Amino acid sequence: MSNEEVTDIAKCTQPAVIKEEVITEGKWVKLEQTTYLDPSGKTRTWETVKRTTKSQTCSADGVGIFATLKRTLHFDCLVMVKQFRPPIGCYCLEFPAGLIDPNETAGEAALRELLEETGYKGEVIGVSPVICLDPGLTNCTTHIVTVNINGDDPENIKPKQQLEFVEVILIPVNEFHKKIDEMVKNEHIVVDSKVYIYAMGMTCATAKPNELPVLKA
Amino acid sequence: MSNEEVTDIAKCTQPAVIKEEVITEGKWVKLEQTTYLDPSGKTRTWETVKRTTKSQTCSADGVGIFATLKRTLHFDCLVMVKQFRPPIGCYCLEFPAGLIDPNETAGEAALRELLEETGYKGEVIGVSPVICLDPGLTNCTTHIVTVNINGDDPENIKPKQQLEFVEVILIPVNEFHKKIDEMVKNEHIVVDSKVYIYAMGMTCATAKPNELPVLKA
Repeated sequence: MSNEEVTDIAKCTQPAVIKEEVITEGKWVKLEQTTYLDPSGKTRTWETVKRTTKSQTCSADGVGIFATLKRTLHFDCLVMVKQFRPPIGCYCLEFPAGLIDPNETAGEAALRELLEETGYKGEVIGVSPVICLDPGLTNCTTHIVTVNINGDDPENIKPKQQLEFVEVILIPVNEFHKKIDEMVKNEHIVVDSKVYIYAMGMTCATAKPNELPVLKA
Repeated sequence: MSNEEVTDIAKCTQPAVIKEEVITEGKWVKLEQTTYLDPSGKTRTWETVKRTTKSQTCSADGVGIFATLKRTLHFDCLVMVKQFRPPIGCYCLEFPAGLIDPNETAGEAALRELLEETGYKGEVIGVSPVICLDPGLTNCTTHIVTVNINGDDPENIKPKQQLEFVEVILIPVNEFHKKIDEMVKNEHIVVDSKVYIYAMGMTCATAKPNELPVLKA
């Protein structure tokens, strides 16, 4: 890692990172030892995982895509993917997602990945701030890109995936949490945290008054 | 890794993991090469990150804690923590969280971590299924443990943290997304994906039909 980068990170606040040394670098992933000053001024070390693929020009490693398929006479559905994930050794239920290519915006990456993984052509309606996935372990970050898909558009009626091995699953927004729980119960899958927590947020916001965190009289 | 474990993972479905070989092992983190059969039957490899700390007796690596502080004459608040994270080189806003100790249940780990990080004594009201954090990169998993805190209880009126360097932040549930966005705008912090996506789920569920999650870049 260059001195410029260390300086740049160190500027962000006190405590600060002093240096980052590569322990092992694979093709996709590297393990580093991070030396940093803790808030008391003591020098400590941390084991940090990074992807090798992060472009200097990208705001985050990747995008997660919250794509809603909107069709006349259908309930709106969230477009999900199910695929085998070697790190888990199992199928995972996830939002479509992918890494941002150099010089690509988050929105461009989202539309490209959505098309590749599901065949749907969408329209970006929002991009989240940069958020971190597991900040005690990795520097990996993502944007959540919110996308609408016009399912009545002829090009979205029989979508053609460009990737093998990814199963597209449509889940109605209005019973998202219930359907996810049914899949967990009935199938040998692991659900991605983004999916489950989005469902929990929806459930929290629509809970009946006496189940909701409310102002007490 | 033992043959028993490989067999156990391989049983879960086809495709399957064939073997897992350690490339480098640190104190907390290891990098492995995973050899697996893809759905067409072709043998491929993947670079996988694992924590070294996962106990055979635990269902997941850790817990994330969605703790609601309930007090008379106050809006209910979610209990958040802000701390410096060496992998990111910056402060992160997160739900309280931690690793599950051997022979601890997810609920026990959540109450212990909540007490350590915030000083609050809570009651577990729900535990999510095992969910994965970044399944293209790691095998790391968590449970989301939902906890209520009786803020009127004398022991929760002046909570005493057991950890230095963790700032406790209370955010009213009824304006969670708005407050998070304000913090992103006004402070040099990165928000954890669990926090931001929970906020997005709440916003989605309460949006009027034509103002569904629109977040400008």
